[in-house]
Amino acid sequence: MYDLIIVGGGPTGITAGIYVARKNINTLLLAKDFVGQAGKAGEIENWPGSYLISGQKLVSDFKNHLQKFEINIKEEEVKGIEKKGEIFEVSTVNNNVLQARTVIVASGRNPRPLKVPGEEKFTGKGVSFCSICDAPFFKNKTVAVIGGGNSAFETALDLKEYASKIYILEFSPKIIADEDCQESAKDSGKITVITNAAVKEIKGKDFVESIIYEDKVSGKKVELEVKGVFVGIGSLPATAFLKNLVDFNQSGEIKINPKTCETRTPGLFAAGDVTDVKYKQIVIACGEGAKAALSVHEYLEKLKQNGKTK
Amino acid sequence: MYDLIIVGGGPTGITAGIYVARKNINTLLLAKDFVGQAGKAGEIENWPGSYLISGQKLVSDFKNHLQKFEINIKEEEVKGIEKKGEIFEVSTVNNNVLQARTVIVASGRNPRPLKVPGEEKFTGKGVSFCSICDAPFFKNKTVAVIGGGNSAFETALDLKEYASKIYILEFSPKIIADEDCQESAKDSGKITVITNAAVKEIKGKDFVESIIYEDKVSGKKVELEVKGVFVGIGSLPATAFLKNLVDFNQSGEIKINPKTCETRTPGLFAAGDVTDVKYKQIVIACGEGAKAALSVHEYLEKLKQNGKTK
Repeated sequence: MYDLIIVGGGPTGITAGIYVARKNINTLLLAKDFVGQAGKAGEIENWPGSYLISGQKLVSDFKNHLQKFEINIKEEEVKGIEKKGEIFEVSTVNNNVLQARTVIVASGRNPRPLKVPGEEKFTGKGVSFCSICDAPFFKNKTVAVIGGGNSAFETALDLKEYASKIYILEFSPKIIADEDCQESAKDSGKITVITNAAVKEIKGKDFVESIIYEDKVSGKKVELEVKGVFVGIGSLPATAFLKNLVDFNQSGEIKINPKTCETRTPGLFAAGDVTDVKYKQIVIACGEGAKAALSVHEYLEKLKQNGKTK
Repeated sequence: MYDLIIVGGGPTGITAGIYVARKNINTLLLAKDFVGQAGKAGEIENWPGSYLISGQKLVSDFKNHLQKFEINIKEEEVKGIEKKGEIFEVSTVNNNVLQARTVIVASGRNPRPLKVPGEEKFTGKGVSFCSICDAPFFKNKTVAVIGGGNSAFETALDLKEYASKIYILEFSPKIIADEDCQESAKDSGKITVITNAAVKEIKGKDFVESIIYEDKVSGKKVELEVKGVFVGIGSLPATAFLKNLVDFNQSGEIKINPKTCETRTPGLFAAGDVTDVKYKQIVIACGEGAKAALSVHEYLEKLKQNGKTK
């Protein structure tokens, strides 16, 4: 029986872990991996104190920091959380069931899928959600990037070092990426932006060979020969393992008390990008992780005072 | 006329500065100094990614990071903020008056004074609010530390490297410092903890010579010969320059919308330890600074859309 199980190994979960480690709270951190969205970022300009640090270096620094403390870590994906009486039962995909008095959900977000035929089939075979991970595989090849926001443009800019030609396909009539991103794309001479493009299918045999989109103005279908498709249309909160213990907002994010990271279930806290925190940024997520940890500490102290533990 | 004036050069103000710098927001950061509470901390264990970094190093990293961007910085203390029509006027102790469309108050906190005779007279002459700054002056001397929380115990632990004997005087019957702090104090062999001690006066000629407290149980007054008095009884939000533009909670902290850092005055935001944010921690303050910066960005975009600027 743990005092606390933290679900998630990104900046939020790790900061929470660092905070509870000093408080003598018997903690298990469960993480699918220690990469997360931050680890897939390129150069990060706004982590205070470290101008231009790579996402990979930052998450590795975070993990090393956590490991300075006595804290239990398991790399296992969580598949369910239930509350039985006063105790939480957290089950993993390896069919382990772990018990704790409190839980912090810091599971972050997953890339939003396109949901078109071929996407699932070719994931890892030309379809990618991470340009930092996969751009080098597309040397001298033509690729498509789906999306019109900053993440799509940053994906295209990562790819321009390798790919020979890059299409950016955006569903709406307007590009919303920052102007400096758009200008860098123009300057590259390799990137063609196509708006009003509704992606319909990704085709190929063993690997991606083409992408089909509908031009929403003319209604015509267009097929582009590409060897890769990078999906950059945002992300969804990772909450599949949570059912009836929390409330969600319209975006599927966990509703929290923004001062304490409490959810509607006593003892269950949530923090960072999986919640309805307004801005999704590493330093904000870390702050939220610290808040959740300190709230857990208060909660456990109250349990002690009420004689419910130790 | 600036788009934004940030008041405060601690972690909150600097993080806000880093965030707005990338958004093409014409910003002035006004700071009394770049030390703040964080700069006076000893070894910091919980800044994510940097296990055991000194407060001095951390704030210096923060400042260097900020200076990578084009941002205006003035080391001047703010004495007043007024809103005239749609414009904020920020006046400084040097009688400069600066104008901006928005303001982020990130002025942090100042040490709470004891308010006993002798405290003001001997400040800098034996009375100190910063052990990191002043502990080395008390080599082989007897000192008193006032307070029973973590900051008082950390002060005593800083002092044990220098002082020959340390009294910790706590007003209430109970010590609330973390147990590991209390144990380290015990282990030092130099630290005597006295509870129920109501400090009444600090005495001396040119420098501190003794401290008088009342034992609240017996009612007796006790005089201890000490060469130094370190006041560690917490802090107060630094809001003297703010009058009618914001609401305060019972602790004198600025009430904010915890999701956006808005105060009740449109265009005036507040973030970090000066606000009613529940926990006062560097990483939380940084997250709040980022939130305020992104809220300012949204606010200025709306002004633009309404044709009120540019």
